[in-house]
Amino acid sequence: MQLAIIGLGRMGANIARRLMRGGHQIIAFDHNQRAIDSLAEEGATTAISLQDAATKLSRPRIFWIMLPAGAPTESTIDALLDLASPGDILIDGGNSFYKDDIRRAKICSAKGILYVDVGTSGGIWGLERGFCMTIGGKRASVDHLDPIFETLAPGLGTISRTPGRIDNGSEDSRAEKGYVHAGPPGSGHFVKMVHNGIEYGLMQAYAEGFDVLKGRSSDKLAEDERFDLNLTDIAEVWRRGSVISSWLLDLSAAALAENHTLDTYSGRVADSGEGHWTIEAAMEECVAVHVLSAALFTRFRSRVEGTFGDKLLSAMRFGFGGHVEIPQ
Amino acid sequence: MQLAIIGLGRMGANIARRLMRGGHQIIAFDHNQRAIDSLAEEGATTAISLQDAATKLSRPRIFWIMLPAGAPTESTIDALLDLASPGDILIDGGNSFYKDDIRRAKICSAKGILYVDVGTSGGIWGLERGFCMTIGGKRASVDHLDPIFETLAPGLGTISRTPGRIDNGSEDSRAEKGYVHAGPPGSGHFVKMVHNGIEYGLMQAYAEGFDVLKGRSSDKLAEDERFDLNLTDIAEVWRRGSVISSWLLDLSAAALAENHTLDTYSGRVADSGEGHWTIEAAMEECVAVHVLSAALFTRFRSRVEGTFGDKLLSAMRFGFGGHVEIPQ
Amino acid sequence: MQLAIIGLGRMGANIARRLMRGGHQIIAFDHNQRAIDSLAEEGATTAISLQDAATKLSRPRIFWIMLPAGAPTESTIDALLDLASPGDILIDGGNSFYKDDIRRAKICSAKGILYVDVGTSGGIWGLERGFCMTIGGKRASVDHLDPIFETLAPGLGTISRTPGRIDNGSEDSRAEKGYVHAGPPGSGHFVKMVHNGIEYGLMQAYAEGFDVLKGRSSDKLAEDERFDLNLTDIAEVWRRGSVISSWLLDLSAAALAENHTLDTYSGRVADSGEGHWTIEAAMEECVAVHVLSAALFTRFRSRVEGTFGDKLLSAMRFGFGGHVEIPQ
Amino acid sequence: MQLAIIGLGRMGANIARRLMRGGHQIIAFDHNQRAIDSLAEEGATTAISLQDAATKLSRPRIFWIMLPAGAPTESTIDALLDLASPGDILIDGGNSFYKDDIRRAKICSAKGILYVDVGTSGGIWGLERGFCMTIGGKRASVDHLDPIFETLAPGLGTISRTPGRIDNGSEDSRAEKGYVHAGPPGSGHFVKMVHNGIEYGLMQAYAEGFDVLKGRSSDKLAEDERFDLNLTDIAEVWRRGSVISSWLLDLSAAALAENHTLDTYSGRVADSGEGHWTIEAAMEECVAVHVLSAALFTRFRSRVEGTFGDKLLSAMRFGFGGHVEIPQ
Repeated sequence: MQLAIIGLGRMGANIARRLMRGGHQIIAFDHNQRAIDSLAEEGATTAISLQDAATKLSRPRIFWIMLPAGAPTESTIDALLDLASPGDILIDGGNSFYKDDIRRAKICSAKGILYVDVGTSGGIWGLERGFCMTIGGKRASVDHLDPIFETLAPGLGTISRTPGRIDNGSEDSRAEKGYVHAGPPGSGHFVKMVHNGIEYGLMQAYAEGFDVLKGRSSDKLAEDERFDLNLTDIAEVWRRGSVISSWLLDLSAAALAENHTLDTYSGRVADSGEGHWTIEAAMEECVAVHVLSAALFTRFRSRVEGTFGDKLLSAMRFGFGGHVEIPQ
Repeated sequence: MQLAIIGLGRMGANIARRLMRGGHQIIAFDHNQRAIDSLAEEGATTAISLQDAATKLSRPRIFWIMLPAGAPTESTIDALLDLASPGDILIDGGNSFYKDDIRRAKICSAKGILYVDVGTSGGIWGLERGFCMTIGGKRASVDHLDPIFETLAPGLGTISRTPGRIDNGSEDSRAEKGYVHAGPPGSGHFVKMVHNGIEYGLMQAYAEGFDVLKGRSSDKLAEDERFDLNLTDIAEVWRRGSVISSWLLDLSAAALAENHTLDTYSGRVADSGEGHWTIEAAMEECVAVHVLSAALFTRFRSRVEGTFGDKLLSAMRFGFGGHVEIPQ
Repeated sequence: MQLAIIGLGRMGANIARRLMRGGHQIIAFDHNQRAIDSLAEEGATTAISLQDAATKLSRPRIFWIMLPAGAPTESTIDALLDLASPGDILIDGGNSFYKDDIRRAKICSAKGILYVDVGTSGGIWGLERGFCMTIGGKRASVDHLDPIFETLAPGLGTISRTPGRIDNGSEDSRAEKGYVHAGPPGSGHFVKMVHNGIEYGLMQAYAEGFDVLKGRSSDKLAEDERFDLNLTDIAEVWRRGSVISSWLLDLSAAALAENHTLDTYSGRVADSGEGHWTIEAAMEECVAVHVLSAALFTRFRSRVEGTFGDKLLSAMRFGFGGHVEIPQ
Repeated sequence: MQLAIIGLGRMGANIARRLMRGGHQIIAFDHNQRAIDSLAEEGATTAISLQDAATKLSRPRIFWIMLPAGAPTESTIDALLDLASPGDILIDGGNSFYKDDIRRAKICSAKGILYVDVGTSGGIWGLERGFCMTIGGKRASVDHLDPIFETLAPGLGTISRTPGRIDNGSEDSRAEKGYVHAGPPGSGHFVKMVHNGIEYGLMQAYAEGFDVLKGRSSDKLAEDERFDLNLTDIAEVWRRGSVISSWLLDLSAAALAENHTLDTYSGRVADSGEGHWTIEAAMEECVAVHVLSAALFTRFRSRVEGTFGDKLLSAMRFGFGGHVEIPQ
């Protein structure tokens, strides 16, 4: 199929590449000319503006927007709403908030334009491994785009099939290939958001476990209860046959193999919006998310030194007990 | 009554003082001679050793041990077990682990010695306000010691009586005076331990609330959603008529009145054993303690910079997304 | 002063009463005629509609809205915007979301109407104890309303003054009387929201502590480590001299005095919006709120039986270990 | 090699089988005669008692104990201490508490007996997939047993090797085959314990995520923000190309493929000791484990209806606000 990719960052460029390798025709646009040039060398048609991209596409036109969530995506969609004609399809493949999708889909719908939101996981590995996608939008538009999704997705690959899974029509056969039509507009990003929420929780479980392993070498412990464990080997051994094997563990093992102490990292951990939005969604639904929230808060905490709250604790301790906290 | 106070630190000295003011006769012993001298000036009889204290007491002898939990208390009790005679009473008024009380009470019992554990709250304010005490031990020994406890306790004071509370014999009338016979040996310290567990939780609730108030001035927020709140006034206003008024809030208000920024504190917060033991007890009982544990862990976290776990998070993020965490 | 009270529920009626007792003149309106009649007997002027209330007030008119947050408050403010004239003051004394205040204050401002948000704590006890109030709005309007706030507030009362607090102008002298001008529109409700967030955390700390006390009677524990504690007495004893004394503990002691087992409660606990909004605010500010969130999630969990997540845990356990979970 | 397997439950029998398939000679003992008979049919030599097993082994004798932690393991080790001679090796392959290993290793050492603790992961899948093992004990004994461990372990298999991992002697080459010598006695079980702690955290992260997905169909949400998601397909799609792919997700996908609603499970989730011990170890080390503890507490909570703590919350809410909680 033919489609424009708007936004050629790490993710957008790889999506364009994987699609071109699969025989699709790409019109590439980005504010960064070098990003466009790089894709052009690999076979993409270039566009010098959204308008130009719109002109170069045959109808119904497909625009795949791959930009940071928030203002960049929002303003691009606004611009495309002016350029697009009834029947055209706007795909937001970034990490937009699902309620923004719901709002935009309504605006598009009023103009006869189709809106599809794609939650895309796979990070920088997607070019090679394929992208895992959860898709929101009307059935007809999602089905129309199927050749694109099939190319981007990992496919069955070498991963064993789920025992007991049957294709009797109640399930979506695309799921086994790594993409799925989740539901109406917004649902694609909603599922991706929860994916990231889970990701935070999984990561924090490993982080805490490795902290407990590392803490065992503390000289405050009794000598025979103190172990100086090789974390690199432990991460490796858990990759085979253990209950906690996972891709995140594979990545941890690789990081530890490269640098046993991880001392190139400061320990200040960023978070993008999805962890936050997952907690909000859970609160709207009255669902308890102790682990997902703790994972997010731990990241917040990692970026601060000496919170005001901690100082207040010391102040209270001094107040009732005369405890003097050791200054920093 | 006549009793020996072993350990004249902040708490022990004030207990001795409040007892002397109530007409009791104190034999004072400590490894620090100045601590003994200071009490002697206020009317205490001095002892130069545990042996000396034992000699100066009439029978049945009462030893109130007020030492740090662990080795200091343990070795003193060992020594007193040799000095004491059947009918004598050992009181551990410190913060011992309740399972240590259970073990010691059995050893004492085999020798005809009585063992009483007293969980003592009130901090440095106890001399003035009285000490809140929860007492474990055999009924007879606890009843025998009642004059001591009554003197130490706050009494009814100016605190309003609980509506609906009736003295029909099912409740312990001492509770209204600020002390209570909780149950068999160990139960006094068990209840005090849970008290401290709750204390951690309450403190952390205030700490987080004030952090949210303070965080509202962040210049990352939209200008009209940003407030520069006077935390000193807010702590003060909540002292009157609000649902969250408490003694800990009183102390917070006083600390903030003295220093609005609390910048004399580093934010590294210590913990004593009780918070930890409360979680252990909860786990033995299969009771969920999300808040009490989070309060303890927050203190652990306050004393570290850049945990290994946080570094591992960054390493994974780099692994799957090529995210480069900003170095410290 | 003269003001209309719109909404005569538990809180609104008591506010009207306390104001009348303080010599203020009340125009009372509610959709429930009986609520109006009841206030009329106590001296209020009645209104049969918002329009009628507006007519009966002299200018500048003061409307105190005391309705459930959300639609009831929103529609009333919409109606009053039509009835009000420049210089009139709308007070939202309910539990509105602070961002709604910010939005409404802008709309009011464009019409020359003043908007004041009052976070009101004190529950059903406010009539007697006074209401603790945190107020958002422009200084001139807050100052104009001072006689109203002073009457409603608890005043200095019998609560001891904060040591170290000085009235040197840097602090708000109103704070000691139980009300404070927190800042611009929205800040009054923001502070009240955080108050409620803290309230959830405090309550959960007590709840967990009492659960640990109660769990100690479990017959799964070793016999000498098992205590059958009198929770009623323990709540009572902690009211005097302990570090964890508070108004919430007073209420707990009263509830336990009335019913030791609390078996009239199902254990399904509601939550209003403030706990949720506090977590949202914290996430906007990147502030870690482990305790406040855990307190909220525990309430969510209390209202469900057998979550899907828990079933999934059992399914995984069966998957890797053949563990068969005991059916309900 | 020749060794006795003591305890032929699910795990012990499969270990025996995998060893026999690898050419090792097994003396099988269990209190259940049918378990012994079943192994005998597959080639094991049978023993009618520990004494008999000891007699049938050539020296140095190797006893692999695979029994429930606690009393069964403890009493068997006591019995073997009497039967064993210097140079014999006792292996505890169960889930013992690591401090028990440390204690036992000392007792064994005094008698010239070698003690090795093996943390064994892999559940019922180990026969097929191989067992992931972390081993504690003296180097000489662990090296001597290497043929056994190599047979039991998964080996390199089809799992891709960790990029950057080099065998320059600083790492243990066995880790890539799925087993590792972790350190001195106790360290094998310690690492396995943390493995299970992490396992709880991972499982809970998925459980919460799926709860958020499921909760999105709630009719309390606005209609266009409500999604009726196919959880079976979503679990499946995340298996390919997503960041959160893992073996636990594979198991979840299989469980959901078999039963979309998981309604055969009650939602009451058991826990074995390791989750609890991991938290204890973390507290000893002052390491914050918000996620691992929350995962454990959620299981505790899943097994209770209407906690006392929740009732106390309702009682307080009634106390300050007159809120009447809806009875069950």
